[in-house]
Order: sequence, then structure tokens, then C-alpha cells
Amino acid sequence: MRIIEVQDLEAIALGGAVYGTGGGGDPYLGKLLAQHAMRLHGPVTLIDVDSLDDDALVISVAGIGAPTVLLEKLPNLEQVLNSLAALESFLGRKATALMSAEVGGLNSTIPFCAASVRGLPLVDGDTMGRAFPEIQMTLCTLHGIAASPLALADEKGNAVMVDAVSNKYTERFVRSITMEMGGSALGAMYSMDGRQARQAVVRGSIGKALATGRAIFEARARHADPVQAALLATGGFLIHTGKVVDVQRGTDGGFSRGQARIVGLDGFDGEELSLLFQNEFLLARRGEQVLVSTPDLIVLLDLESGEPVTGELLRYGLRVAVLGIPCVSQWRSAAGLELVGPRYFGYDVDYVPVEQRHMSRDETVA
Amino acid sequence: MRIIEVQDLEAIALGGAVYGTGGGGDPYLGKLLAQHAMRLHGPVTLIDVDSLDDDALVISVAGIGAPTVLLEKLPNLEQVLNSLAALESFLGRKATALMSAEVGGLNSTIPFCAASVRGLPLVDGDTMGRAFPEIQMTLCTLHGIAASPLALADEKGNAVMVDAVSNKYTERFVRSITMEMGGSALGAMYSMDGRQARQAVVRGSIGKALATGRAIFEARARHADPVQAALLATGGFLIHTGKVVDVQRGTDGGFSRGQARIVGLDGFDGEELSLLFQNEFLLARRGEQVLVSTPDLIVLLDLESGEPVTGELLRYGLRVAVLGIPCVSQWRSAAGLELVGPRYFGYDVDYVPVEQRHMSRDETVA
Repeated sequence: MRIIEVQDLEAIALGGAVYGTGGGGDPYLGKLLAQHAMRLHGPVTLIDVDSLDDDALVISVAGIGAPTVLLEKLPNLEQVLNSLAALESFLGRKATALMSAEVGGLNSTIPFCAASVRGLPLVDGDTMGRAFPEIQMTLCTLHGIAASPLALADEKGNAVMVDAVSNKYTERFVRSITMEMGGSALGAMYSMDGRQARQAVVRGSIGKALATGRAIFEARARHADPVQAALLATGGFLIHTGKVVDVQRGTDGGFSRGQARIVGLDGFDGEELSLLFQNEFLLARRGEQVLVSTPDLIVLLDLESGEPVTGELLRYGLRVAVLGIPCVSQWRSAAGLELVGPRYFGYDVDYVPVEQRHMSRDETVA
Repeated sequence: MRIIEVQDLEAIALGGAVYGTGGGGDPYLGKLLAQHAMRLHGPVTLIDVDSLDDDALVISVAGIGAPTVLLEKLPNLEQVLNSLAALESFLGRKATALMSAEVGGLNSTIPFCAASVRGLPLVDGDTMGRAFPEIQMTLCTLHGIAASPLALADEKGNAVMVDAVSNKYTERFVRSITMEMGGSALGAMYSMDGRQARQAVVRGSIGKALATGRAIFEARARHADPVQAALLATGGFLIHTGKVVDVQRGTDGGFSRGQARIVGLDGFDGEELSLLFQNEFLLARRGEQVLVSTPDLIVLLDLESGEPVTGELLRYGLRVAVLGIPCVSQWRSAAGLELVGPRYFGYDVDYVPVEQRHMSRDETVA
């Protein structure tokens, strides 16, 4: 258990942007909203999942929609609270703790808003260990925990409750309702008890985001290399360094989809990396050779500042380091890969863990 | 109060098809489902809205979606009951009476399914006095009664609850959720108390559908003219008789939209009628002259059998009588015309009551 103060949100947002792997929405919007809430309503207690009672009611709150839209249409505090209240009213019971659905981006900090206003503890963990674009892409799904009943709230006061037969159906309904809500919405979902949370939650991921953010800030303060600091803090591999020379992006069906080309620099001269994304960065390859693929994390950091680059901020001329970070091991099971592996997203490649790909590359080079 | 038996549903479905004005879904599907339910669970008591207690809970149940889809994907009993149960669970209270949202088409008989299975009385009335394509197009909206909370159920067991700030927002959400449910869904909506029902309900419209259906059946049995019988039973005007020579139809955004041309016969020789529809028939004109427009009812009857022709069954070669029937007077207010008048549907014409248009025509002819 630890107390998260307003000033800690800077590092959580920065670290959350790292684990957002390019998606999860702009972390700074979530941070501003959470800071606003915490200045008014006080700090948030981060608790370990093991401290939950078996019959606790844990609810995840999250922003949903295309990050490109979330940039234009800022979520507000009332929406966060409305979605939570709508779900509690449906369940006939109040939450005893809140959680992040995904540690990445906006959704690493949005839950702090509700936790502060409602005076509820926040579980130090999330359901993905990163960001993913679809509702069913959680370890909860692997453990048979339903995303629905799921409440969505827009900024006009509308609320919609989805009660679906599977998490994939929940995703379908949520996506079209979110489109009708103008492309973004706030949601409360994945209600579970303490026993379920202990099975399905990626433990300590909020604390890890905080530590990663702090490591980057400290490197900057010491005029050290923030990319190196991020590699150490995340346990990731440097797979490319280069300059963004081409970005193709569209917003389609509630997602930002596209690809970018990054021409090598600093030891990667002459090598070009292609990056494919659907909100999150999902596949990085050099020619036909895959360097990292979902569910492992692909992270772009600004070479100078170590600032994570999200998909919607990718632009010509950015000089970036590309990191590959191993995902949590549960994603590497057959069921995990079926849910979030490269083939689910339409990439006809086999998943190979990033550390294995990286080692074989070193062998080739040597 | 009267008891509606299985055999009465034939006439209610036929009369309901008349007041469906081409929309409201195929009445025969609703009839088959209601007959099935009533054979298993018994007859339904039709009650007058004045017999409701002030604190009664009246809920309307209805099929939603493009009639063209409802023809292919039949609604089932479980869906009707699921949508009602979902709304009751949200309200924390059981319905004391049910109602038809629209007297037209499928929705004149669908409520009998739920009323029979649940042993609930059905109010003799509806919220439109006809069929209309959108959720907010009810006298309830004019009286400030909310369509939401509104529960939708599909045939797979999914349920979605909409709780919107206005009936127009409810319509938007319902339409996109219905699309996600495969183009059709069952809904429970417009919960109201007895006092509200007395203000907003079109009284006796189910009874009127029954009487209209019976009049057509009896004329057939007597080898009399069923079109004349329908004119008498509905208080309508014969505005055209002819043969359908062209039908253009598309399913778009959850609606069947299109137009048809009907070349005159039997005293209307040489005159061509154009008919525009969006699920329901909305505008009938001869050249530039409007003969009938929404909210008045436009009804097509097969010349021989008096069988109502729905928009999705319109086809080349059909010989039809076109009737114009005055709508209930509340639709003729400024607020009513704003909600369902010709301009709402994109037709740049002023509404003139059908009886007035018809009389001026007679004068011109004379």
C-alpha cells in the first residue's frame, strides 16, 4: 500500500505512455484530469491485489475510442463518475476498489480521477500489462471474467449499459455505441471480486509505470541517456534507432490505423524499420524480418527526451529509439496468442518472443 | 376491458397492417409469434387506459429495425421477454401493464406475446396511432415522457440498456445498437405511470385495428369490396387506384428507404402517383401536387383482397388502392409536425390535412 500524491501523476503518466505502446490515448489528458480531481479530493491509496477481500467489488474504469478523437474531445470528470455510477446502479452494489483496465496511456491515470473523488483505493495492477485496442483483450477474458455489464457515458449525460454473452460481443457493441457518442466515451467494466482479481490482474503495473516514469525523469535531470534509463526500467531491448520518414494514418471503425517507416541512424544506418499500428504499435519489421510483434510491447521514445511517442503524434522527422519489451507471460499461452497475437490483427506471422528474436539477431550479427 | 383470444389476432394483424402505413414490420410474423404464445399461455386482457392506477407501471414492447431485415431474421419469444425483463431489472420494478409502441404492423401483435406469457393486461392504445420509423416519434415525446431507459435484446442473448438525455439521442443509440444486433432487435421502452399514459396514449387503437381487420374479413366473406370496407372502418379517403410500375428500395442506416410509381386505373386512368417511404409511406404526390403527407396515414391495399401492402412487399404489377387517413389531431400541432411532419423527413412541403387536400381536389374536379 502506498499513497499516490498529485506530483506522482507526472511519472505515472510518463511511464503509462511507455506501456501504452503508442496507444491508450494521450497520457497527458488523463494526467491533467486526475491532477484536477486529486487537488480537489485528495490523494489515492494504491493497494496490492492480495489485500482485497474475497468478496470485494473491483471495477475498472477506462477511456474508450480512437486516440485521435480523444485528443480533440477531452473526457471530463463527470463522465468518469457517471459511467461508474451507472454500473454500480446496475449491479445494485458500490465498488470497494477501482482498477485500471490498461496500464497504458490515458488509462493509467483516468482511474485516479474516480478513485480520488470517490475515496476508493486503486489496485496496483491492470488487466493487460500494456495497452490493447479492444475490450476483450485482457487477462480477464483468459480467466473467464466478463467485461460486461459495462456502462458507457458520454459528455452529454447519455449512458448505455451493455450486457453481452461474450467479451467479443461486448467489444462490438461498445465500439458502435462509442462511435455514436462521437468517437470517444468513458466506461466502467470488468466488475470482479477479490478472488478473481488475484487470478487475472497484472500485479504492480501501476507501480512499474511510476518507476519507469521516474527513471526517465531522473536520467533527464542527470543529463544521462533517458532511452538507456527506459531500457533498464522496463527490461526491454533496443531494436532500432532512426528518423520517421513516412506516416500513413486513418481513423476507421473507432480505431486509428496506419503504418510508419523509420530510417536507421546511430548504428542502424541503412536499415529501415516498418511499424504497423491499430491504436497500439503491433508489429515492427525490417524488410520481411519481424523484429517485435504483439503481444510483446513496441515502444517509441524520442531520442533526446525519452518521451514516449504515441501513434497519433507520430510525424515526419521525429528521431526515435524503438524498444521491444517482453509482455507478461500469460499472453504467450495459446489462448493468449489467439486473443492478441499477430494473426488476430491480420498479420500472417508466427509469434516469437522478443528476447528470442533479439538474441538470434545478435548471433547473426556476430 | 375485453378478452383477446388467439383467433382475434388475425383481425388485429390485418388491421395493424393497415395502420402500419407500409411499415412497422410484417404483421404476420408478429401474429404467428403471438398466436404461439397465447396457445401456450392463454388469452390477453385488453384494458382501457382509464382503468390504470395512477402509479401503474406501463411498458411498451416493440420490434425495432428495418422491416426488410425483420422478414429474414424472425424475432423470437425469448427476445421479447428478455428486453422486458432487462428494463424491469433496471427500473427495480415489474410492469403492471404492457402497451404497443405503435399500432402498426408487427408491433400491433408483438406486445400480445409478452402480455400472454407474463399474464399482464395490455392497454388498448399505442403511442402513435399509426407506425413511424423512429423511436422519438410518439405522442409521449410531445408530453415529455422519456423513451429511455430502453432495453434492447437480440436473439443471441445480448442485452443493451440505453439511458439517454433525450428521445432523439435514444433513437441514435438504438439505431446503431440494432445494426450491431444484425439489423433487428426487440425493445422495451417508454415506461410510464397511469397518469402519464392517460395524457399520451392514443386510446382504443388496438380495438380499432381489430375492427378494421374484421371489416375487411367480413367484406371478403360477403364478396363485397374490401377497399370500401376499409375506407368506412378507418374514416379514410380513396386518393388513387392503380398498378405499381416501378419500385426503388434500399436498406440504409437501419431503414428501408425508397419510392414507387403507381400508374392510374379505374377512374384514375392517366394519372400517376409517386409514393415515398422510409419504412412507412410518408408522401404521396401526383406530379408536383401533394395528395397526402405524413403525419396523415398513407395505406396501400390490394385491390382484390383488401390486403395491406407493406413497403418491403411492394413490387411491380401489384394493383392497389391508395388510401389517405387523417392522423390523430395531436400530430397536427406545431410540435407534432416538427417531430413527424414532412420537413423532418426532408420533403420540402407544408403539411395540409388530408381531408382538406381531398376536398379541394373534389372542388377542382367538380
